[in-house]
Amino acid sequence: MDSIANTPEPPYFAVIFTSLRTSVDEGYGSMAGRMLELAADQPGFLGAESAREGLGITVSYWQDLESIRDWKNHAEHKVARELGRGKWYAEYSTRICRVEREYSFSAG
Amino acid sequence: MDSIANTPEPPYFAVIFTSLRTSVDEGYGSMAGRMLELAADQPGFLGAESAREGLGITVSYWQDLESIRDWKNHAEHKVARELGRGKWYAEYSTRICRVEREYSFSAG
Repeated sequence: MDSIANTPEPPYFAVIFTSLRTSVDEGYGSMAGRMLELAADQPGFLGAESAREGLGITVSYWQDLESIRDWKNHAEHKVARELGRGKWYAEYSTRICRVEREYSFSAG
Repeated sequence: MDSIANTPEPPYFAVIFTSLRTSVDEGYGSMAGRMLELAADQPGFLGAESAREGLGITVSYWQDLESIRDWKNHAEHKVARELGRGKWYAEYSTRICRVEREYSFSAG
């Protein structure tokens, strides 16, 4: 996911997921990829941006709080979160935000 | 900046800065470091998180919108933004958000 999400005019919502990994790999990469794919299929999903450099930051964008709640309650996502707490993540923080304004720049 | 920001109880504010770089380096690293240092000295600054992996994501956290506006108008920050648009960034997006809720996990 190597591009800036093309989101609509605010307001919309963002989930900032910041994490520190353990040293355990066991299926982490494929699960992380699967979760992004699955998120992108959910109603209200607007885009996502992700980078890891020691600290990992994934921001997903959503139309409304209901879409975020539904994604949080998705059965497969719940299982992934449990595995995440059990072996992949040493620490994480999830912040639910309302995006109020956006400014963009393109050198093109 | 290899740790998760230790922010207070919501509500507070977040600036999500997502960027794609050009191939020009010329002082980028030291300017980026200087800007994070300077931001951390501003009134209302609560913390920041940053990672680059192709896409760069820096999230800074603030007490209120006034602090964000003052930082936006800081003279040295303005000069850095102009240099950024002129040579370092191919594309970027700045999103101003209100953080409504936060959930944390620590395996410790």
